[in-house]
Order: sequence, then C-alpha cells, then structure tokens
Amino acid sequence: MSHGKQFTLFSHKGGPNGWKIAFLLEELGLTYETIFLDFQKGEQKGPEHTKYNPNGRIPTLVDHKNGDFAIWESNAILTYLAETYDKEEKVSFSTGLEKYEQLQWLFFQASGQGPYFGQGFWFKMYHAEKIPSAIERYQNEAKRVIGVLDGVLSKSEWLVGNKYTIADLSFITWHYAAVNSLLDNYDCSKEAPHVDAWYKKMLARPAIAKVFAARAEISKA
Amino acid sequence: MSHGKQFTLFSHKGGPNGWKIAFLLEELGLTYETIFLDFQKGEQKGPEHTKYNPNGRIPTLVDHKNGDFAIWESNAILTYLAETYDKEEKVSFSTGLEKYEQLQWLFFQASGQGPYFGQGFWFKMYHAEKIPSAIERYQNEAKRVIGVLDGVLSKSEWLVGNKYTIADLSFITWHYAAVNSLLDNYDCSKEAPHVDAWYKKMLARPAIAKVFAARAEISKA
Repeated sequence: MSHGKQFTLFSHKGGPNGWKIAFLLEELGLTYETIFLDFQKGEQKGPEHTKYNPNGRIPTLVDHKNGDFAIWESNAILTYLAETYDKEEKVSFSTGLEKYEQLQWLFFQASGQGPYFGQGFWFKMYHAEKIPSAIERYQNEAKRVIGVLDGVLSKSEWLVGNKYTIADLSFITWHYAAVNSLLDNYDCSKEAPHVDAWYKKMLARPAIAKVFAARAEISKA
Repeated sequence: MSHGKQFTLFSHKGGPNGWKIAFLLEELGLTYETIFLDFQKGEQKGPEHTKYNPNGRIPTLVDHKNGDFAIWESNAILTYLAETYDKEEKVSFSTGLEKYEQLQWLFFQASGQGPYFGQGFWFKMYHAEKIPSAIERYQNEAKRVIGVLDGVLSKSEWLVGNKYTIADLSFITWHYAAVNSLLDNYDCSKEAPHVDAWYKKMLARPAIAKVFAARAEISKA
C-alpha cells in the first residue's frame, strides 16, 4: 500500500461495524487509511476486497506491519488488535479469566445485538413488503438486549472487570442506531438508565468523539 | 455440584448451540453433566440459570475445576475450553495468526450462520403470521452463507491451517438444521459439494457421532 500507514481498513460510510474498528485504532493511537466501499456499485463483492474477505462484507483490516495479515469480522479484528497492540491492557484484557468474559460479551454483541438490530433495520427500511409484526419482533428483541445490558450495568460500571474495554466499545454504534432510528418513542434514559449513562460516558471519550466527528463530516460530503 | 464431573453444561434438547459444547468436551475427553432446561417452563430465565447467565439463553458452562467459573455464548465457551484444555492444539489453535483466523470464523458462525438460519426457522415454524418473503429472505441468506464456506473449502480441506478445529466444529449443528429442515428441495451435495464433504467428514468423527447418538436417544425419550 502506498499510503504509508500501518493499516488499511475496508469500511462503509453508513454501516455500524466499520466504525468500531476506527474507535479502537484511535484509542490505541495506531495509523490507518480507510477505504469506504460503495455498496451500490457492489465494491464489497469485488475482487479487490474479496481477495482479503471471502464473505464480501465489511469491515476488513490489513496489517501492513504484520506481513499484510488480513482479518475480517469486526469483533475478531478488535480482539486481534487488542492482543497484538494493547500489551498494557489499556482498553482490553488479554490475560486471566477477564479475557474470556470480554470474549463472551463480544460474542453477545455479534450474535445478539448486531443481528437483531440489523434485521430490525432491514424490515423497517428495506424489505419490499411492510410487515409490522416483523418490525415489532426486532424492536422487542432490541429492547430485550438493552435490558440484559442494563441489568448487568446496574451492578457494575463496565461489562468486564471494572474498566472500559473493547467489550463495551463494541456495542456503541448499534446502540446509536437503535436509539436514533430503530426504536420508536423510546427514551433510553428512562427505559434503561444504566445503559444510557454507560453509552454517554463512552461517547465523551476523545477517541470515540473524534471518530463520530469524522463520520458526521463524511456523511455531509 | 454433587455430580462429581468437571463441568456443568446448561443446554436444551433441541437447540443447536448447546450440542456444540458437548462436541468439544467429547473431543477433549472432559467430563460433564448436562442440565437440559425446559424452555416451556421458562427455566432458562429462572434464577438457577440467570445467576450464571444474565442473557437467559443456552448454553452456559460452569467449570468446577476453575473456581466455578461460568461462561456463556457458545463460541466464547469453545475458545475458553480450547485455550485452557487443548494445550496440545489437537483441535484448535491457541497461538500464531491461525488463532485469529479461527476466531474470525467463529464470529462468522455466530453473526452470520447462527442468526440467519435461526431467523429462518423462526419465520418458517413459529411466527404467528405466515410471511413467505421473510422465509425466502432467510433461506437465501442461508444459501449465501453456505456458498461463502463452499468457496473457501474448495481451496482447503479445513477452514483454518489445514486441520480440523473448533472453527469447523462450530458450524455442524446449524448446518444439520438447515439441510434437514430449513431449506426446501436443497441438495447440498450438488449445490455446495465442498461443504457437504466437509460436513460429512465431521459427522464421521467418533466424538461427533457419539453426541449425535446421545441427542437422538434423548429426543426419543
């Protein structure tokens, strides 16, 4: 790659999953160049991307300082980056049982939050037919997932071991999408106050705020 | 626990995700007692289970030789077991870049295969309203996921590093459900021959065959 930065990140301007990687790269002060793929042109399914990622979805990360190692699936990328470049465990656990608790929450994000919230958006915005019972199903699942998090966060400030980690970070973008677009007449500060406080604390972190500002700039362009 | 075995596994007789854990425990020769929760009675949401797993879903594993450490999310459990009890890397990678490739496929299973196949079953069998366009959506997504795997398996025998690992194992039960119940008029040996051969090779492994036999026995009872 000619850009001279450590990583190339294949992402999408609107989708939630690519921005998660940017959050962590910023938290760790690592350099990266983002390539935003145009899904309307099918670039995510094109050979320049699928040579790294046979699934043809984003994000995909290429590490030019590690033999151009390519990895996809956002939470596998977060774990790879944390274990490789967060040796001081600033925002992650890479040892002890907390490492597995962190992984457990990353899988809950990937299998619970992401798919249910994503299917909600599908039926609310893109499905050819309007199916109120399908939209309602996923809105209810989204509230259930937020409720599980709220129960845990009512007893501890962060999901794992009393510090902010990639487990917490992984939930930010889909939560943003849920409270801003998926759920109707939903006031998170009332329905799930511990989640709301946790989310807002994360938004105030400089690395997260920087990425959200960049995202807003890009969506204006 | 009074059963004297190393692990207690909270599972469900029918659902795919608990059996994945049994596969690996058998592969590694570890002892476990399975508690099959009755979902019709809501046992998965009861305090005896949610004290270990606030998500109220299965599987959940408790390791009595590790301070009763409790972990949930099936692929987090597989990773915990592999890194802790498969030190010889018989059916896993716990070092090198292969470790992250293995994790990437585990996340693809958890975020791609599991949810899409699961939503297909929901709309085919349980949703109050019959919605052909929703069933078709998830049947098509299931075929897409199988197609991604088939492309990769056309070039290598296993998903990671030319040996059978927990990454491969994680796909068995949902694939079984898809080819036996979700997909209509689907012949995997013709549509995705590399996946079919890979899947059948896994079914023939003694540990996998033993668990499937136990499952058949239990569903008769």
